[in-house]
Amino acid sequence: MITNHTEYQAIERRFTRLAAIHDALGVLGWDSQTMMPTGAADGRAAQMAALRVIVHELLTDSRLADELAAAEVEAGLTVWQRANLREMRHAWIHANAVPSELVEASSRAASACEMIWRTARPAGDFGALLPAFTEVLELQREIGAAKAAALGCTPYEALLDAYEPGVRIAMIDPLFNDLAEFLPEFLPRVLERQATLPAPRPLDGRFPVETQRILGERLMRAVGFDFNRGRLDVSLHPFCGGATNDVRLTTRYNETNFTVSVMAVLHETGHALYEQGRPAAWLTQPVGLARGMAMHESQSLIIEMQAARSRPFLEFLAPLVRQTFGYTGPAWQADNLWRHYTRVEPGFIRIEADEITYPAHVILRYRLERAMIAGDLAPADLPAAWNDEMQALLGITPPDDRRGCLQDIHWPSGGWGYFPTYTLGAAIAAQLFETARLADPGIMQGLSRGDFVPLVGWLRTHIHAKGSLLSTDDLLTVATGRPLDVSVYRRHLERRYWDGE
Amino acid sequence: MITNHTEYQAIERRFTRLAAIHDALGVLGWDSQTMMPTGAADGRAAQMAALRVIVHELLTDSRLADELAAAEVEAGLTVWQRANLREMRHAWIHANAVPSELVEASSRAASACEMIWRTARPAGDFGALLPAFTEVLELQREIGAAKAAALGCTPYEALLDAYEPGVRIAMIDPLFNDLAEFLPEFLPRVLERQATLPAPRPLDGRFPVETQRILGERLMRAVGFDFNRGRLDVSLHPFCGGATNDVRLTTRYNETNFTVSVMAVLHETGHALYEQGRPAAWLTQPVGLARGMAMHESQSLIIEMQAARSRPFLEFLAPLVRQTFGYTGPAWQADNLWRHYTRVEPGFIRIEADEITYPAHVILRYRLERAMIAGDLAPADLPAAWNDEMQALLGITPPDDRRGCLQDIHWPSGGWGYFPTYTLGAAIAAQLFETARLADPGIMQGLSRGDFVPLVGWLRTHIHAKGSLLSTDDLLTVATGRPLDVSVYRRHLERRYWDGE
Repeated sequence: MITNHTEYQAIERRFTRLAAIHDALGVLGWDSQTMMPTGAADGRAAQMAALRVIVHELLTDSRLADELAAAEVEAGLTVWQRANLREMRHAWIHANAVPSELVEASSRAASACEMIWRTARPAGDFGALLPAFTEVLELQREIGAAKAAALGCTPYEALLDAYEPGVRIAMIDPLFNDLAEFLPEFLPRVLERQATLPAPRPLDGRFPVETQRILGERLMRAVGFDFNRGRLDVSLHPFCGGATNDVRLTTRYNETNFTVSVMAVLHETGHALYEQGRPAAWLTQPVGLARGMAMHESQSLIIEMQAARSRPFLEFLAPLVRQTFGYTGPAWQADNLWRHYTRVEPGFIRIEADEITYPAHVILRYRLERAMIAGDLAPADLPAAWNDEMQALLGITPPDDRRGCLQDIHWPSGGWGYFPTYTLGAAIAAQLFETARLADPGIMQGLSRGDFVPLVGWLRTHIHAKGSLLSTDDLLTVATGRPLDVSVYRRHLERRYWDGE
Repeated sequence: MITNHTEYQAIERRFTRLAAIHDALGVLGWDSQTMMPTGAADGRAAQMAALRVIVHELLTDSRLADELAAAEVEAGLTVWQRANLREMRHAWIHANAVPSELVEASSRAASACEMIWRTARPAGDFGALLPAFTEVLELQREIGAAKAAALGCTPYEALLDAYEPGVRIAMIDPLFNDLAEFLPEFLPRVLERQATLPAPRPLDGRFPVETQRILGERLMRAVGFDFNRGRLDVSLHPFCGGATNDVRLTTRYNETNFTVSVMAVLHETGHALYEQGRPAAWLTQPVGLARGMAMHESQSLIIEMQAARSRPFLEFLAPLVRQTFGYTGPAWQADNLWRHYTRVEPGFIRIEADEITYPAHVILRYRLERAMIAGDLAPADLPAAWNDEMQALLGITPPDDRRGCLQDIHWPSGGWGYFPTYTLGAAIAAQLFETARLADPGIMQGLSRGDFVPLVGWLRTHIHAKGSLLSTDDLLTVATGRPLDVSVYRRHLERRYWDGE
């Protein structure tokens, strides 16, 4: 028994080391998007590749396999230690299921394809991308097949599992099928209602970068971001990265429009709170990690969509905006901000989509990538299939592939099975927020004063501090009393976009 | 033969990987002094320790030892490959001579001692530091002894060898003994001459950080810094760090005094040019590294001391300063800048010392650390020995240990054998600069226009592009026609501080 427990301790030490390397990768990744001079790109790629190879070597070391097997039959471990072992095994399966050569070939193919995509996208030239795209897909299919055997699921689920462990099609399909039925009926009603209301008054003005940054940091503090363990910088695309106790957020600024940056900062702060709230005793272990990308997205969307686009919060935000930028008048009232932030308009581009149409973009990608991984859709047929789905879900057809199947970096760069986490996250966010709001009336009252303590306190207890102790499903069930319930998400959309709450 | 050549290639691949990890460490180190939030310090230490352990494991891997031995008897290697093998063996000796436990104990002791030093220094309390200091010293003595056997030199030389490979006491003693004789005679003469001249007019004004930064970047560009492969930031102490093709300089700004930051930027740019000028074909290999810390210091001092404090350059700098900050009058003329930048005044603090008294600070530390490593000076006797040397070399006695033996971080943090590189670098700088200047009259003419192309072109060819192909001694001899010649350095000091050139 004592010997076995020593095995467990030995594995913890291995994973502590892995966590340090992952953290180093997080800082290097942040630097490459915020600080790095362009001429350093090749060197940085080499540095990060070297560290990733080391991670892979540590996870495929045969001594780890032996220690894991020994620890798994050990008695006397705590619940957290058991869960940690389960997460270690999960990481082990992902690393060991795929031969190194396949990992490398896939990584090389994705780098090459991403390079081509960077010129093919602006040119709208899917034909130029097709050969590299096909290679990336074939390698992803191989990886999916290899992991499927080890995980006991379908190849597509095996890819999804790398982003949200344990989530299967059985959780996604009911949600996405329901939404695919609901949205084409709901969207025209929302647009009709919107047309009867006055259009948002334009928020014209100059919004200096430095002033926007100060406002962003003010809001980050209000939400509960700990600047002793993180910072805010600028990058081309906003993200939340960095390392343990060192959360690096980014945004970008447009000096003629402050509304995008404000919400980007709040979104990324939602991610950051999850990272800064992970269980302190387990920060170096797999069980101490955030649950997965869907749960992570739920945390950003609770702040950005559920809390910050609510009327109570916008009542707090409006005077702060007026005071910060020095504008007055009816355009700068909370109600007008609300109309901006809840404006619905079907469009071709996912990252510009509103809360109502966003799920349609995700469902489309989910259907298509699942079909491609299954071998039911050939890459050459992707543009036509994309346009058909857009027509069916949003009633519009992209005029070119630039605004169609070429718009996202995910597939060319090897990110297959990631898209569903966006809408899973949105639905989880709605369910968590409703539960929290009903449990504590102080939450909405707090938002109207810019006080996030009641809301974040609930999230800390029910989500952040749990790390990866529970599965996604169990975490949600324990927190809200039931598994994922799409009706809550629908109700949220109806309340905001039909009732105008 | 072909098999052997494969061995050589295999080792190159190992060192390419090591270079990537070193580069990652360089970026993480830069970040920790410029960007990192304070709460991330422990995590960052863990990340860097994990990468250093990996470096050590890669260098002590028994397969590397076999491959090295095989490659060393291989025929048909080029001169660069041979030199690369020699440098690989050198790195191997340093890593393998010392047992891991000793490396770890020393690193831990140094971290603990540095922590105590941070409070003992401001308190001037050497007694509080003594136990930890003694432990650091004892472990350094053990490391020196272990490496001495492997390198075939004395323990002190073995420590020095980690900073400037191949340099031995036989190169340092003639230089330092000469200077220790020359300076106490020369310094009073300089001070006397200085007293007969008008004192520098004060450079009073407000110098906004942003304006100083713009001036600094302007000068960096003039010197030849490539911003596509590097950047300038702010840290508590200026340094040159980062990674291959990603050189990160720092400075600090004082809004009531611009003179320090200008020279700090020029100094670090000298280091940066060396890094940016390393041989392109060998950037991932040991032979492609800069020769050592003394040669590195020579490159910073050529820019800062030899070039930038010369009258021709100050003729260029003065109007630029007037234009940048918007001041006019006699204080802002080149001659007054020259009087500021060549002001001599014996003081207690090394990092504030002028060009004349700086070597005395270094010689003192060299004598004392050598005696401590040899066991001839007990740490408890350090304060008294320090003060005696200060009196002998500069004629002043520190009023307390804060301004005496507690002022530098080097010894508490385990940096023994580093100090001599400062003055070795200064002497090498004088010799290289004199050779370059005599070879190309365009160099001084260029400086008067802020044009560093002739000077840096000479340095690129004769120093930077050579990497570690030659030993320090050979590199200097090939570049200047003779080994280190202290008379050149003396002549430089006499010309500037006696002749007023």
